[in-house]
Amino acid sequence: MTEHPRARRPRRHPLPGEFELIRRMTDRLPAGEGVIVGPGDDAAVLRPRPGYDLVATTDTFVEGVHWLRGLIEPDALGRRFAAANLSDLAAMAASPRWALLSLGISADVDAAWLEEFEYGLADALAAHGAAVVGGNLTREPERLSFTLTLLGEVPRGRAWTRFGARPGDLLAVTGSPGRAGAALALGAAAHRVPFTAAACEPLLRAHREPSARVAFAKALAATGAVTAAIDLSDGFRGDLAHLTEASGVGAEIDETLWPRDPALEEAARLMLFQRALGGAWPRARRRWVRFEPARARLQRLATELHFAPSDDYELLLAIDPALERKAIAVAQAQRTPLAIVGRFNDAPGVLTLRNAEGGTSPLPGRGWDHFSRR
Amino acid sequence: MTEHPRARRPRRHPLPGEFELIRRMTDRLPAGEGVIVGPGDDAAVLRPRPGYDLVATTDTFVEGVHWLRGLIEPDALGRRFAAANLSDLAAMAASPRWALLSLGISADVDAAWLEEFEYGLADALAAHGAAVVGGNLTREPERLSFTLTLLGEVPRGRAWTRFGARPGDLLAVTGSPGRAGAALALGAAAHRVPFTAAACEPLLRAHREPSARVAFAKALAATGAVTAAIDLSDGFRGDLAHLTEASGVGAEIDETLWPRDPALEEAARLMLFQRALGGAWPRARRRWVRFEPARARLQRLATELHFAPSDDYELLLAIDPALERKAIAVAQAQRTPLAIVGRFNDAPGVLTLRNAEGGTSPLPGRGWDHFSRR
Repeated sequence: MTEHPRARRPRRHPLPGEFELIRRMTDRLPAGEGVIVGPGDDAAVLRPRPGYDLVATTDTFVEGVHWLRGLIEPDALGRRFAAANLSDLAAMAASPRWALLSLGISADVDAAWLEEFEYGLADALAAHGAAVVGGNLTREPERLSFTLTLLGEVPRGRAWTRFGARPGDLLAVTGSPGRAGAALALGAAAHRVPFTAAACEPLLRAHREPSARVAFAKALAATGAVTAAIDLSDGFRGDLAHLTEASGVGAEIDETLWPRDPALEEAARLMLFQRALGGAWPRARRRWVRFEPARARLQRLATELHFAPSDDYELLLAIDPALERKAIAVAQAQRTPLAIVGRFNDAPGVLTLRNAEGGTSPLPGRGWDHFSRR
Repeated sequence: MTEHPRARRPRRHPLPGEFELIRRMTDRLPAGEGVIVGPGDDAAVLRPRPGYDLVATTDTFVEGVHWLRGLIEPDALGRRFAAANLSDLAAMAASPRWALLSLGISADVDAAWLEEFEYGLADALAAHGAAVVGGNLTREPERLSFTLTLLGEVPRGRAWTRFGARPGDLLAVTGSPGRAGAALALGAAAHRVPFTAAACEPLLRAHREPSARVAFAKALAATGAVTAAIDLSDGFRGDLAHLTEASGVGAEIDETLWPRDPALEEAARLMLFQRALGGAWPRARRRWVRFEPARARLQRLATELHFAPSDDYELLLAIDPALERKAIAVAQAQRTPLAIVGRFNDAPGVLTLRNAEGGTSPLPGRGWDHFSRR
C-alpha cells in the first residue's frame, strides 16, 4: 500500500451552526489526488484516470439499527463504516479514490463526537487511498444516520462481478466469517457475563475493526484467477446465495476444508451456557469454568455460526481451478488468510454442506434481511 | 435535450422482503448509457467519457424535515428530490449521468408509495440523461430518509465554481427566487384558508415542481460568460453570501432591476392578512377580498420574500460584462427567465440593496441553517 495523506485529529468544542460545522469538518480532511474542486462547492469535481472504469457504491449506517451509541466509540464507528464501503470496492477489485459523506444529525450529539467519527472514517479511507471530497449535513430528529458513497477505479473492463462463477470453479473465502455476527448475538449477554470477556475478544474485534480486503483484491485481480466475487455483509450463506443466483450455479461446501475457528467454538459454548444458565446467577462463574456441552451439539452450533448472518467484510471468491496456485501465492504474499472451502456446480441455487463422512445436507444459516420479522 | 429512456410506472402491491423489494425497484429502472454493471452487484461499474471531469454531489431528504407525507405525492417528491440534486450539477455546468439512491425505510410505508417515489425520481433523472445505477435499502425506525448521490460530467477543466466572481461582474438570477419558501411559510395557513388557493398556486408549483436549469447551464457554459455559479437551495441572500464569501467579493442588488413577481406580492398580502385576521373566521372571505394593506408595507415584505430562505433550485450567476449579450441570447433561446439584478464589487462579504431613489441598505433575508433555533 502506498503512503497517503492522513486526516488530522479533532479538538473538543460545542456544536456550532450548520455552515460552521461543515467548515470545521471539511477543514481537517486530507486533500485527495485527482480532486479539482473539493468540499465547499455545489458539487465536487474529480479527474478520473484514462483507461479506468469508475466503480460506485453507497451504504447507510443508522443508529440503533447498525450500531448503538454507547457500545462503539465514534472513531471506531467511522472506521467500521469506511470498511463496509471499502469492502464493496474490494469485491469489485477496485481502488478506492473519492467519497461523499451525508450526515443526518440529531440534536443530542456533540461536535466532538461527530468529529471523532469523521476522523476515524477519513483516516480509514485515506489508508486505502480515498479522500472525502464532499457531502451533506442535515437534521434527523431521532437518531444519527450516515450515508457514504464511495467511488473507485478499476482498469477498464477488469471489474469483478457476482455473475461470472462457473460450475467447477473453486469456492474460496478470506478470514473467518461469522465472528462479527456472533459478537452481536452475544452482545447483550456479554455485558451481563463479564467474566467471559476474554472469550469474546476476537469476536468483538471482528465486529468493531473489520478490515476491508482492498490491497489483497487488487493484487489477486492481477492474476486473472477470480471469476466472481462478493463481500460478506449479510453472512456467508446469504451472500453465497446472492452470488450463486447471479451466476446461475450451485455450490457445495466441504466441512473438512473449513478452517477451525476456536473463537467461534468458544462463542458456541457461551451460547449453550446462556441457554443452560437459567436463573442461577450467583454460581454462574463456577458453572462456566466447568461447562462442557455435548461435543456434537457444540460442533453443530459452531458450524452454523460460520454461515449465519454476519457482516465480516471478508471476500467470497470463485476461482478458476487452473489458477488456484497463483491465487494462493498472492494470499501468502499479502498475508491474507484464504481458504478453498468448496466448489461451484451446475445445480442452480442449491447450497449444500458435505461432512467428514461424505454425507451432504442443506447449508445451514440464512442471510440478513432488514425487513424480516425476528 | 436528447431523448432518453424513461422509467416505467409501478403497479400496486404490499411491502415484500428486502431483496424482493430491491429486485422490484431495480427491475423497472431504465438502463443508463456507460453502465457496465448496474444495480444488483456490490457496486456499479461506469465508463466515464475521455476528456471529461467527473462531478459528484449528494443530498438527503428527511421526512418531517424536508417534506411531510400527507402534503406531497410520492411521485412529486421523487421529482423534487431529483431536482435538488440535478440543480447542484447545473450549478457546475455538468451533464447528469448516474445516480445512487439510498433508501431508509420505516415500517409504515407501503411498497406502492415507495415505487411511485422511485418512479418520479428515476423519470425526472432520465429526462436529464441520468440513470439510477445502484443504491441501498435499510430500515429507519421513525421516518423515511433518502440520500441521492448524483454523478455527472463536464468537459475537462470547464466546471463552474463558487469562487470565480470578480468585482465588476454582473449578478444574474434565473426564475423568481423566494416562491418555494413563501409556499412553505404559508403552508399551514393555506390549508386553513382554502379560498386563497388560487393565489398560492404559483408558489406551491415552485415548491412541488422545481425544474433544475440543467440544459440552460450547459448551453450557457459554452459561451464562457459565467465566472461563478451557485444554485439557490438556502435562499437568495444565503446562497449569495456563500458565493461572495468563496469569491472574496461583495455584491449590490438594484431593486429596480429585480423582476416584479405578482405571485410573491400576493403571498405578502396573504401574510399580512393572516396577521390582521385575529379570530374573525366567519367573515374571513369577505375581509380577504377587501383586504388592502399599506402599499409600502406590502412592497417591503414582498422584497424580503425574494431574498428569504427558499429552495427554488434556480441559478445565481456571476457574468463577465463583456459577454452579457451572449448570456442573454442563450437565455432567450432556452426560454429561461434570466434577469441581471446587480453587480459584484470589491467589498468582501458586504451585500447591499439599492432602491429606486438611489439609497442603499443591507440586503434583507438570511439563509437556511438546519441547526439554528427558530
